[in-house]
Amino acid sequence: MPDRSLVKKKTHLIAFMPSGKRGRFPNGTPVLEAARLLGVDIDSVCGGRGICGRCQVDMTVGKFSKHGVTSHKSSLSAFNEVEQKYKERRNLKDGRRLSCQALLLGDAVIDVPATSQVHKQVVVKQADDRKIEMDPAIRLHFVQVLEPDMHNPTGDFERLCAALKQQWDLENLECDIRTLQKLQKVLRDGHWSVTVAVHRGTRITKIWPGFNNQAYGIAVDVGSTTIAMHLCDLSTGAVIASSGMMNPQIRYGEDLMSRVSYVMMNPGGELLLTEAVRSGINGLIAEVTTEAKVDPDDILNAVFVGNPIMHHLLLGIDPTELGGAPFALATNSAMTIWASEVGMTSNPDCRAYFLPCIAGHVGADTAAVILSEAPYLQEQMTLIIDVGTNAEIVLGNNERLLAASSPTGPAFEGAQISCGQRAAAGAIERVRIDPETLEPRFKVIGSDLWSDEDGFEEETRKIGVTGICGSGIIEVIAEMYLAGILSSDGVIDGAMAAKSPRIVADGRTFSYVIRDGESEIKIYQTDVRAIQLAKAALYAGAKLLMDKLDLEKVDRIQLTGAFGSHIDTKYAMVLGMIPDCNLKEVQAVGNAAGVGARIALLNNSARDEIEELVKTVEKIETAVEPNFQQYFVEAMAIPHKTAPYPELSKAVKLPAPKMLSDTSGEGGRRRRRRGKVEAAD
Amino acid sequence: MPDRSLVKKKTHLIAFMPSGKRGRFPNGTPVLEAARLLGVDIDSVCGGRGICGRCQVDMTVGKFSKHGVTSHKSSLSAFNEVEQKYKERRNLKDGRRLSCQALLLGDAVIDVPATSQVHKQVVVKQADDRKIEMDPAIRLHFVQVLEPDMHNPTGDFERLCAALKQQWDLENLECDIRTLQKLQKVLRDGHWSVTVAVHRGTRITKIWPGFNNQAYGIAVDVGSTTIAMHLCDLSTGAVIASSGMMNPQIRYGEDLMSRVSYVMMNPGGELLLTEAVRSGINGLIAEVTTEAKVDPDDILNAVFVGNPIMHHLLLGIDPTELGGAPFALATNSAMTIWASEVGMTSNPDCRAYFLPCIAGHVGADTAAVILSEAPYLQEQMTLIIDVGTNAEIVLGNNERLLAASSPTGPAFEGAQISCGQRAAAGAIERVRIDPETLEPRFKVIGSDLWSDEDGFEEETRKIGVTGICGSGIIEVIAEMYLAGILSSDGVIDGAMAAKSPRIVADGRTFSYVIRDGESEIKIYQTDVRAIQLAKAALYAGAKLLMDKLDLEKVDRIQLTGAFGSHIDTKYAMVLGMIPDCNLKEVQAVGNAAGVGARIALLNNSARDEIEELVKTVEKIETAVEPNFQQYFVEAMAIPHKTAPYPELSKAVKLPAPKMLSDTSGEGGRRRRRRGKVEAAD
Repeated sequence: MPDRSLVKKKTHLIAFMPSGKRGRFPNGTPVLEAARLLGVDIDSVCGGRGICGRCQVDMTVGKFSKHGVTSHKSSLSAFNEVEQKYKERRNLKDGRRLSCQALLLGDAVIDVPATSQVHKQVVVKQADDRKIEMDPAIRLHFVQVLEPDMHNPTGDFERLCAALKQQWDLENLECDIRTLQKLQKVLRDGHWSVTVAVHRGTRITKIWPGFNNQAYGIAVDVGSTTIAMHLCDLSTGAVIASSGMMNPQIRYGEDLMSRVSYVMMNPGGELLLTEAVRSGINGLIAEVTTEAKVDPDDILNAVFVGNPIMHHLLLGIDPTELGGAPFALATNSAMTIWASEVGMTSNPDCRAYFLPCIAGHVGADTAAVILSEAPYLQEQMTLIIDVGTNAEIVLGNNERLLAASSPTGPAFEGAQISCGQRAAAGAIERVRIDPETLEPRFKVIGSDLWSDEDGFEEETRKIGVTGICGSGIIEVIAEMYLAGILSSDGVIDGAMAAKSPRIVADGRTFSYVIRDGESEIKIYQTDVRAIQLAKAALYAGAKLLMDKLDLEKVDRIQLTGAFGSHIDTKYAMVLGMIPDCNLKEVQAVGNAAGVGARIALLNNSARDEIEELVKTVEKIETAVEPNFQQYFVEAMAIPHKTAPYPELSKAVKLPAPKMLSDTSGEGGRRRRRRGKVEAAD
Repeated sequence: MPDRSLVKKKTHLIAFMPSGKRGRFPNGTPVLEAARLLGVDIDSVCGGRGICGRCQVDMTVGKFSKHGVTSHKSSLSAFNEVEQKYKERRNLKDGRRLSCQALLLGDAVIDVPATSQVHKQVVVKQADDRKIEMDPAIRLHFVQVLEPDMHNPTGDFERLCAALKQQWDLENLECDIRTLQKLQKVLRDGHWSVTVAVHRGTRITKIWPGFNNQAYGIAVDVGSTTIAMHLCDLSTGAVIASSGMMNPQIRYGEDLMSRVSYVMMNPGGELLLTEAVRSGINGLIAEVTTEAKVDPDDILNAVFVGNPIMHHLLLGIDPTELGGAPFALATNSAMTIWASEVGMTSNPDCRAYFLPCIAGHVGADTAAVILSEAPYLQEQMTLIIDVGTNAEIVLGNNERLLAASSPTGPAFEGAQISCGQRAAAGAIERVRIDPETLEPRFKVIGSDLWSDEDGFEEETRKIGVTGICGSGIIEVIAEMYLAGILSSDGVIDGAMAAKSPRIVADGRTFSYVIRDGESEIKIYQTDVRAIQLAKAALYAGAKLLMDKLDLEKVDRIQLTGAFGSHIDTKYAMVLGMIPDCNLKEVQAVGNAAGVGARIALLNNSARDEIEELVKTVEKIETAVEPNFQQYFVEAMAIPHKTAPYPELSKAVKLPAPKMLSDTSGEGGRRRRRRGKVEAAD
């Protein structure tokens, strides 16, 4: 603590910027103490000992009539030895002071830089500059503990708690046994000065000898296809390493349904799936900690999001019940457990937080999407669609929020499509068709050139043109429709074969050839049907939610998920995947679930908020809604059999309706997909 | 639930015995419901479904003017089908009714047998008929859970909680992840009827399909020499199996000090000691569950007591700090953790409770002794001594309670004594010396005959007469003193050699021969000195506590511990191990720590009580008390240099004081025993 011998009865006025809070304090009061007493947010881990350097401030010299303060250079005590030492050890900008060391000797205006605030704002999403306030579950506290005394034989833990009460006002702390086992040695190694990590003000989860400034957390989005992890610094909120991998469960089944089938057919199979996802997560922990040079034992907090089946398997819960009606979750509540209980190789006392699930098909990933996109804070009526094998659909605003899932099937991910493939190098991702010549041009992943540009063939020779991925399928089918190749009811028009050699007979139906030659890429009539089925399911689900809110039109549409992020929103609307909307208000927002996980990692209140919120979300089970089938059939047409698309029409010239098949269509024969082993993605 | 069609508006008077509680209820009210509404204590696990049979009552017929009730046979509905079924399955005495089935049809007097009460009294100690009220941490609740519903997609756990709230008024329940992992299967196996075990009203720790009536707990006294375990039925409180074993840590050192030395000399040695004690406990779990035919997975609660070093090692805490001043405990608070965290092979979600420690030398075993003997409930000033290598001493009454430990050393346990041995077959345990002839007679463990009785030699030929155990040493030295062989200052009187060949010269000192021939057993001068040192430490500790309370005399003395239980209290007082007291008020009370552990297992409030109480216990550290050395030297004499023993003199004729050595004595040269590696027992 600084020398207080200068303290006299005289008082000075101090004003803190940018909060504008001000007050009078006795001569010699440390600036940090004045800030505390005024409720000004300044960070400190060391408790005013000049070690952590988190309490840095700037003094502003001059006359501030607004605050009634004239701030002189001499209003603070001189830069002292403790500050000098800190400056030599770390970086302290010229003019910056440690507010725990600087004493008030005259009226002063003090500027608190954003980086010195506990509750500083951090940007979690570059795209829309979304900021959240730092308020992580783990806080570090440096503390000096009384040595044991034979005359007052309390335990080391009890003396640590007494010191935390006295120095940090923390009460009723618990302690994990693993920490207790290390406690005595750490206290002595640190000569009775230690830093403790406290989880949500209630539980000590790690203890270091002496001063420690570093604690880390991970935000993990466990998708059925990929697992993504961000390693975050829990003091700055910064992402210091990120990594992703294919979910190792894929070896037991490409999609969720096949994995649940695997469990049902192979007793004990759930253990293998659990082991697979956990080992994947541990692999990512090794990667991100190696990259950031962080000790995995310093990972003290983890947040997991995932769909219900991923959520259950990670927790070691057999997902069989989620494979059939009534799709019962083992639990829908948020959970906080030890990371070691899910086999994580972080610190064993790392607390792992699982966001709540919403329903049997609408999981913690959707809760995270809601947290990220925050439709509940807006008046605009927002439709959010996480596009995948199973689409999660959220609709609402600050008054009501509805959620549902719709069984779109894997067509959007390139499965069930003749030339379909995953979004990887060589996959066609963009397609344009000349409405006059019906000639296509396209781009493949791995090259910036269009296929009709010079050098395309050279540049793509190595990667090849291997197939067509989800976004490419959307575009080619939409372009076929816009060019008149495809009728409103989804039939490739054989009459066009006379106009272009690209349209070829294929038995009783026709195909459209995007690329001929050795590696021919064609869109068959069956491919169009698969996309129609998928997009009709999506539209029908959204329409059901709109019905519940008596809505004809939504104000805003956000597409998320690995596929949803790459989609061209215009073509999605041309196809009728989504309802009509002002195209400017339709966005692909990236991996919102991952952003939601990071928000929950950095902000406690966000956890409380989403836990309360999901209770109010109205869950719609599309499978049992009587209108679903009719909505589905109507949505088979492109863009839709009955719904007008006035907003879309302003931006795109839609062809006149043309029907080529009889009204029953193939869609009418569609079997309901959600059977015994079908489930959410 | 019983048929309620009989319900009419008419009301009847019902009186419950023995509580005397009474009230009026509508015709057709189940007797159990009337009891609940009146606050009459009747047990039920099944919640009134006629399954558990815990709510049995008797109806008493006749006129009870005191209660204003005339009770007729027809005042209850007829014995019904549910009761008939129960009777066929289990035992239901003739005339007994299930109170959940019997409906009130007229005024009635109902007798609630003790076995039907939740808070029934159980005897925990045969010796003094000590009774405690059943109030275990684990309660069983049979519950019917709603099936999942797609329209209201809450998780199975949330529906279970809702049912427990509605049917048992339990709220905010948590659930261990291992239980959650089994939850869905158990609910379906039980067709949505399950029994849950709830720990202290807050946490579900086990779930069974359908109805289950059985839960068990273990009370474990972890001594440095022996580990004792009782397996208890948590509904009746009955001990259904008990077992004990040598503490396997003995291979690392006979006494506590040598074990702590082992840890200090062998890095990682604490892990071996922890592993040893845990494997011992698991061995006992296997024994008691096999004997009682109980599934170890049904052990849902465990209570552990032990001295600080045993306590720490069981918890996996390095005991090094307890090996030297200031003897700092890692924690002194009571703890509740998962049994799996201390490696127990019970149910992994079994909750393990550790009683609080009092000080570095006064452990959870002493807390258990206090709970068992309850000096804090009495006006009598009670001195309790747990005799061992380190003696724990408690003194006080319902106003104040003091505790200390005193380093007696291992002499009382037969160590440091030439012919000393553990209390096992062949050890001399009782000795009498004829004051005229100075001839001894004795008894050995394993035979009921005295050595001067016919057949003694034949009966002991097989077991032999192998040495002398602690209680034998106390008696022979006390008898030597009473017979005049030993002076007041502890010198074997060489002048007596002329009177008897039993006193023999042995260099510059003399010995007393108890048994001659091949297996000679002798008491040497050094043996007497060892016992003097031990008993002086004990007396000095007790005297220090009496000083703090300004006491000249205590009202009652209780000796406990493995050795303390076998001691003849008269001889203990002749030797001056304990202060003067009315001999009728001096008792050996058996293994009080084990009884205390059982009390904590069966009664929650006892846990709360002892946790609060230990905070008020005044801890005296004998090692740093200035008077200890002087008290110690004065207590070297037999029975004491200065303290008169008026109460003892009434019962025993004490010889006139006789001093044979110079006043400094060997005692004055005694080194303080409590060095770097010495600690409590």
